[in-house]
Amino acid sequence: MIKVGIIGVGTVGTSVVEILQKNRDIITARAGKEIKPVFGVVKNLAKNRGVDIPLSDNVDDILNDESIDIVVELMGGVDEAFEVVKKALSKGKAVVTANKAMLAYHRYELQHSANRQPIGFEASVAGGIPIIKALREGLSANHIESIKGIMNGTCNYMLTKMMNDGVEFDEILKEAQELGYAEADPSFDIGGYDAAHKLLILASIAYGIDAKPEDILIEGIENINKEDIFFANEFDYNIKLLTIAKKSGNSVELRVHPALISKKEMIAKVDGVMNAVSVVGDRVGETMYYGPGAGGDATASAVIADIIDIARDVNNSPMLGFKKILENDILRLKNSDEIFTKYYVRIEVEDKIGVLSQISTILGEESISIGSFLQKQSKSSKYATLLFSTHECCEKNIQNAIKNISKCKFVKNYPSMIRIE
Amino acid sequence: MIKVGIIGVGTVGTSVVEILQKNRDIITARAGKEIKPVFGVVKNLAKNRGVDIPLSDNVDDILNDESIDIVVELMGGVDEAFEVVKKALSKGKAVVTANKAMLAYHRYELQHSANRQPIGFEASVAGGIPIIKALREGLSANHIESIKGIMNGTCNYMLTKMMNDGVEFDEILKEAQELGYAEADPSFDIGGYDAAHKLLILASIAYGIDAKPEDILIEGIENINKEDIFFANEFDYNIKLLTIAKKSGNSVELRVHPALISKKEMIAKVDGVMNAVSVVGDRVGETMYYGPGAGGDATASAVIADIIDIARDVNNSPMLGFKKILENDILRLKNSDEIFTKYYVRIEVEDKIGVLSQISTILGEESISIGSFLQKQSKSSKYATLLFSTHECCEKNIQNAIKNISKCKFVKNYPSMIRIE
Repeated sequence: MIKVGIIGVGTVGTSVVEILQKNRDIITARAGKEIKPVFGVVKNLAKNRGVDIPLSDNVDDILNDESIDIVVELMGGVDEAFEVVKKALSKGKAVVTANKAMLAYHRYELQHSANRQPIGFEASVAGGIPIIKALREGLSANHIESIKGIMNGTCNYMLTKMMNDGVEFDEILKEAQELGYAEADPSFDIGGYDAAHKLLILASIAYGIDAKPEDILIEGIENINKEDIFFANEFDYNIKLLTIAKKSGNSVELRVHPALISKKEMIAKVDGVMNAVSVVGDRVGETMYYGPGAGGDATASAVIADIIDIARDVNNSPMLGFKKILENDILRLKNSDEIFTKYYVRIEVEDKIGVLSQISTILGEESISIGSFLQKQSKSSKYATLLFSTHECCEKNIQNAIKNISKCKFVKNYPSMIRIE
Repeated sequence: MIKVGIIGVGTVGTSVVEILQKNRDIITARAGKEIKPVFGVVKNLAKNRGVDIPLSDNVDDILNDESIDIVVELMGGVDEAFEVVKKALSKGKAVVTANKAMLAYHRYELQHSANRQPIGFEASVAGGIPIIKALREGLSANHIESIKGIMNGTCNYMLTKMMNDGVEFDEILKEAQELGYAEADPSFDIGGYDAAHKLLILASIAYGIDAKPEDILIEGIENINKEDIFFANEFDYNIKLLTIAKKSGNSVELRVHPALISKKEMIAKVDGVMNAVSVVGDRVGETMYYGPGAGGDATASAVIADIIDIARDVNNSPMLGFKKILENDILRLKNSDEIFTKYYVRIEVEDKIGVLSQISTILGEESISIGSFLQKQSKSSKYATLLFSTHECCEKNIQNAIKNISKCKFVKNYPSMIRIE
């Protein structure tokens, strides 16, 4: 029998206990051993959790219990969780964690300190979708050319509603909060940070790259408005908060931002709270993984899959996908101003002669040429909104152009930009 | 170093050799060991394969070579391949196979004879998509409620063209053959047998069910015509050759047939030669896996993933997902006449008074009620085509009703039926 202790018995922890109990027969048959949740640690013992395992508010009650084989870390946070996980490993326990923030900062230290103890973290990225396993094992024959992910259900729910129903950002945010899809303080989701943590974990497995959230471009969906939605629909794009990892030559770009994607792409068809990750390998081509990215049961499904792997003794896969360091082809992280892609720009301007010509001149100075163009007249004001896409150009150039355009007197606000994938 | 011998150096075998050589650095870093293709066996030595490994036409040259650690079986066929694989296992070699036909018949015998030698067969189902791993490991915490797969690229390519471009079956079959998407004798793909083999493999992992192709309902796409496409488009359905495994209570239904699916379903959005498998788990909900289901490189990607798992010593996962036999909840295979679903029926009838009333009476006798109804008049004939869908009913009843309708004098041909999912 495998005994499991759970640190943090909230929504996910409760589901872990319940599934291990209710699906015990099939889990035992699959794992070859019974897997039993035996102990939980919570912050507030007064709160009723509805689980029938003994609870304590002292983490050491699990760490010092020699009968516990696997510690499930669901406490959240970065440094404190890291210390707890290290301690569990040092005591010879296997660890399963859903903590993406902790892994975004400490995954390589954890890999070193594991010392042959398995660490499962399938639940840390895209909830119930077994994307870690797919990338680390299923696609291991390939150089990974790109990863594009929809990995934040809150943002995808909001953007889907904005695209399909024409609802404004503030309105849909309120609705998402009422439905429990968005937190009271939604900035972590909406600002792209949650998705960035997940991207960094996947990027390690794909490329062996040790980057932290501070090292990469992260933009949220706060500035997307009705005109952007109009342009996207007009030119057959969807707007998604996309996590992107892309290899070109010996460098890799990692970025999180809203993106216009052709509606024909499979990943553009992923709507509502669902997550999906599209991975292009040099030999396999595109594969995509779709499913629920959050929720107690979906996340617990991934946690338990890791526990079953440990029970089956399938634990020699290297935590981050590499048994050895790559000797050749070591990849470097691109600076964000080196990104090379197409852009969509929205500029609110005074409606007068010469404006378009000045904007074109500025774009020309940065060697940027326009793809599609739309002008929207507002009846009730002296302003017009210019919406256009560019051909491929360098991020540095578009940023320069936007800065220079913003200095023109006829421009009302700082122009808004969305990358096109 | 891990030494690999390949039996069958055709399209997939050639890709396996090439990828192992070209992606050697990254594969070595991921596996922790160099993996080297050292020998190949082919039927016809005269044919140039473009690979730089020694070739022989004698399978024993691989089986008796003690230095070879892993045998990759790509010879195809059922019984001969099974004997070769058993021999390789008995000689202490690990085996990786892409042979779905062999597994559709012999997977349980292989599991027994493996005797701690790992057998990888990721490539046998849905090519480059790591669906075996997802189902066996990623979703292992769940009771699997259903599996719906688009697992034959030939059929999906043809149906997509028929739906989107209004091309007739015979015309698109010819085109698919010219493009190399369909074989000269296409019956294995188009008749649903190829997809059925894959379904049986997945059903073992999900349910522990040992069924053979003869035991399940298999229907092909040969009878789908323009009127079916018209009805589907009219009522917002797509038509797909679907493999279905579905659990209800203690029984499981396994079937392969064309199906009408709402265009809103994620799996209905999978077009062209691509494959996808949607799996619903009792706790995780729906996850879907999408990618190329065939082709040398995509299939080789899955073969090599299995080889890397063996090199990493990740080989304790039970071949078919169960370490022990389920003690309770043993599942039985449903008879096909027990299927309970909605149906679409096409009947060509003489255009005269009383026809509809007679058909309604026959349906009523079998307790079948009509959902949607369309009548199409043909200008140049005295016949009309009736297209209708039913509410949920039992397969036995619809089959009876169709048989009775076919006996009516006003019916031109035996009515055509497609299940609705």
